[in-house]
Amino acid sequence: MTDPPVVMVGTGTGHAGGPGFDVANLPFGVARLPGGTTGCVSALGDHVIDLTGLARAGVLGAAAPGDAVFEDATLNRFLACGRPAWVGVRRALARLVRDGDPALVAACVPGHAVELLLPVAVGDFVDFSASIHHAARVGRLLRPESDPLPPQWRHMPVGYHGRAGSIVASGTGVVRPRGLVPAGGAPELAPTAALDFEAEVGFVVGAGSAPGEAVATADFADHVAGVVLVNDWSARDVQAFESHPLGPFLGKSFATSVSPWLVTLDALDPYRLAGPAQEQAPAAYLAAVGAAAYDVHVEVTLQSQAMREAGMAPVQLTRACFADMYWTGPQLLAHATVNGAPTRPGDLFASGTASGPEPGSEACLLELTRAGERPLALPDGSSRTYLEDGDTVVVRAWAGGGRRPLVSLGEVAGTILPVRDAEV
Amino acid sequence: MTDPPVVMVGTGTGHAGGPGFDVANLPFGVARLPGGTTGCVSALGDHVIDLTGLARAGVLGAAAPGDAVFEDATLNRFLACGRPAWVGVRRALARLVRDGDPALVAACVPGHAVELLLPVAVGDFVDFSASIHHAARVGRLLRPESDPLPPQWRHMPVGYHGRAGSIVASGTGVVRPRGLVPAGGAPELAPTAALDFEAEVGFVVGAGSAPGEAVATADFADHVAGVVLVNDWSARDVQAFESHPLGPFLGKSFATSVSPWLVTLDALDPYRLAGPAQEQAPAAYLAAVGAAAYDVHVEVTLQSQAMREAGMAPVQLTRACFADMYWTGPQLLAHATVNGAPTRPGDLFASGTASGPEPGSEACLLELTRAGERPLALPDGSSRTYLEDGDTVVVRAWAGGGRRPLVSLGEVAGTILPVRDAEV
Repeated sequence: MTDPPVVMVGTGTGHAGGPGFDVANLPFGVARLPGGTTGCVSALGDHVIDLTGLARAGVLGAAAPGDAVFEDATLNRFLACGRPAWVGVRRALARLVRDGDPALVAACVPGHAVELLLPVAVGDFVDFSASIHHAARVGRLLRPESDPLPPQWRHMPVGYHGRAGSIVASGTGVVRPRGLVPAGGAPELAPTAALDFEAEVGFVVGAGSAPGEAVATADFADHVAGVVLVNDWSARDVQAFESHPLGPFLGKSFATSVSPWLVTLDALDPYRLAGPAQEQAPAAYLAAVGAAAYDVHVEVTLQSQAMREAGMAPVQLTRACFADMYWTGPQLLAHATVNGAPTRPGDLFASGTASGPEPGSEACLLELTRAGERPLALPDGSSRTYLEDGDTVVVRAWAGGGRRPLVSLGEVAGTILPVRDAEV
Repeated sequence: MTDPPVVMVGTGTGHAGGPGFDVANLPFGVARLPGGTTGCVSALGDHVIDLTGLARAGVLGAAAPGDAVFEDATLNRFLACGRPAWVGVRRALARLVRDGDPALVAACVPGHAVELLLPVAVGDFVDFSASIHHAARVGRLLRPESDPLPPQWRHMPVGYHGRAGSIVASGTGVVRPRGLVPAGGAPELAPTAALDFEAEVGFVVGAGSAPGEAVATADFADHVAGVVLVNDWSARDVQAFESHPLGPFLGKSFATSVSPWLVTLDALDPYRLAGPAQEQAPAAYLAAVGAAAYDVHVEVTLQSQAMREAGMAPVQLTRACFADMYWTGPQLLAHATVNGAPTRPGDLFASGTASGPEPGSEACLLELTRAGERPLALPDGSSRTYLEDGDTVVVRAWAGGGRRPLVSLGEVAGTILPVRDAEV
């Protein structure tokens, strides 16, 4: 896992492609196409592949869905078709690419001519806390008097439901939220002074599970179609004041950004490896099955408005490996469904902040700045404890590189916009 | 608020009507109609009113939506039309009823001939903790060493996101969930031994709010179309083990039951009154506006399988008044949106357990049995700390009665089914 792809940083547009989007990848997404129609797409280098045209041409193979499924404005109906459809269409695309098929060539649109949209309509969004490094660091910072990890942490993935309705596409501006925070006397409504990012990997449910159906870890790939990148923006001051005993609410619900490309589990399959040994054997329903971690490199950059105006490149804040997560995707899904809760196509469950063990692998500012104790110096001469208006945060990730095929997960970008005028 | 309506208890079917469903009510719902089609309906006594037929007949007035909106299997598109449509259609229905219009008569279907379905597709489900009596009692039981209310409780409504995908219609069986609970050594996956109900009132968003739009308390009725009853089933042992620090997850996400009738705010308008004085003046965005509490009586009954088989009537567990809530609907919505989080038609935000101050007004078993310390005796000779398989819980509610028009909120019913065979 060397040689990061050449990336165009700080564009904040989430448009397609480049290195890591060749035939080894072939992800799925949704785009507004030239002419204004919206439809499902894949990516090839700097181009997107218009799947609506290929479906109409009948060249996507026997497993391709009918019923104009690719003309939808989300991938949900395609995902609901199940693993044979995802595998079949991706194989058909690979064949068309290798053959240089004229239909494929005709379906390619330059990436700069399309707008990539949110790939799925998310039904339920669950955010987990799968990194023991993140959980322990945050525990030490926020609850120094007690064990950094709560008693259940090594026994089960800890998670909560987030707000699906405020999930936004990469490139969408993130308005600084207000919230109630402690002040001298009574708490006051104020713009958050502790706006943070959290770099995460999110798993997208393709084929749902019925009420009462506990999804076994071994059945993970039949249910999960692929991954996206997630930035779970967090207002730490709001979150700290509100969270006991019912968990995070308004400190998270104002916006969550998602990358445009659903990169399939199949594309990432060559990069599976065993995750870290778990310190306690979990219950049988959480037992590890084979190599369930992904050797995916996650990187976060920040560019302030002043840096952008001065032509300074973004600075790298975080470089982590997703294989360092304590709990794996199959374990997260098994846990979320062990009580019989159903899942639906388009459900999103994210890893939580994907921090690793080493310094520099912390995937949020709360960890990087030790809750504001150690500000970060930026090349524009300013420093950061938390995000300032105008800051652009880009999370990108990839697997492979060097002698192995590069499979990019693309990027999720967002720029902080000033708080809006209060009307209340 | 006297004279409870005559109700058929323990049917668990959620079918239409009876007392409290006359012209003063005219709620909205969704039903599978004779012939198998699904569509939007209202209720009149023991009948449902097929709105699809009335819409086609063109008798629902100028504000009625076109585009076959009532032929949907949810109310969402109708709700999205906004308050003028909800008000206009309900007024048109009242006029047709008063006139004994032949079109109305033709659109009436006996309640026993239809199946009432979930009225809305819920986007995001937020559950609040709006009763100070519930919060304080639970705090004393679960955290006896500290202040029963967390520091922020009197300053803001405390809430969290629940799982929208496991919301089920009244009458749906509730399978006892498994969960990880503490055992002698490592925690074990076991069927919950502490299955509880929570009787709540839920507010349904009709007209959504845009990202960044904080909904002022004064604008509540422009956004919220009406209320439903909610039973937020809870596995207390699972919940207790998992909830710190991210809040409830699998202890709640297995099922949440919702009543079939969306009773409009307009129907409940005569029953508005001032809620209890708040002990601390909240921030300006939460300032009370006029009479924002609802004088709605909430009742919970339980019937065990043995009672049912012996022909014994259900026993009343709870009798509470929704006007005793500390936080009102307008305050809940103002809080949920003050950070700019958008809302969508069909979003549901519930009060949390609607317990009152008096003994007998506790709206869950955790409170009623003092966390299992004081079992309840049932007429079949058994006792309950938490729910047993075969128990049917019915939550019903109404406003008015006696000399005032009775407006029923109907009921939400559910029967506990045995845990399924483990497959994992």
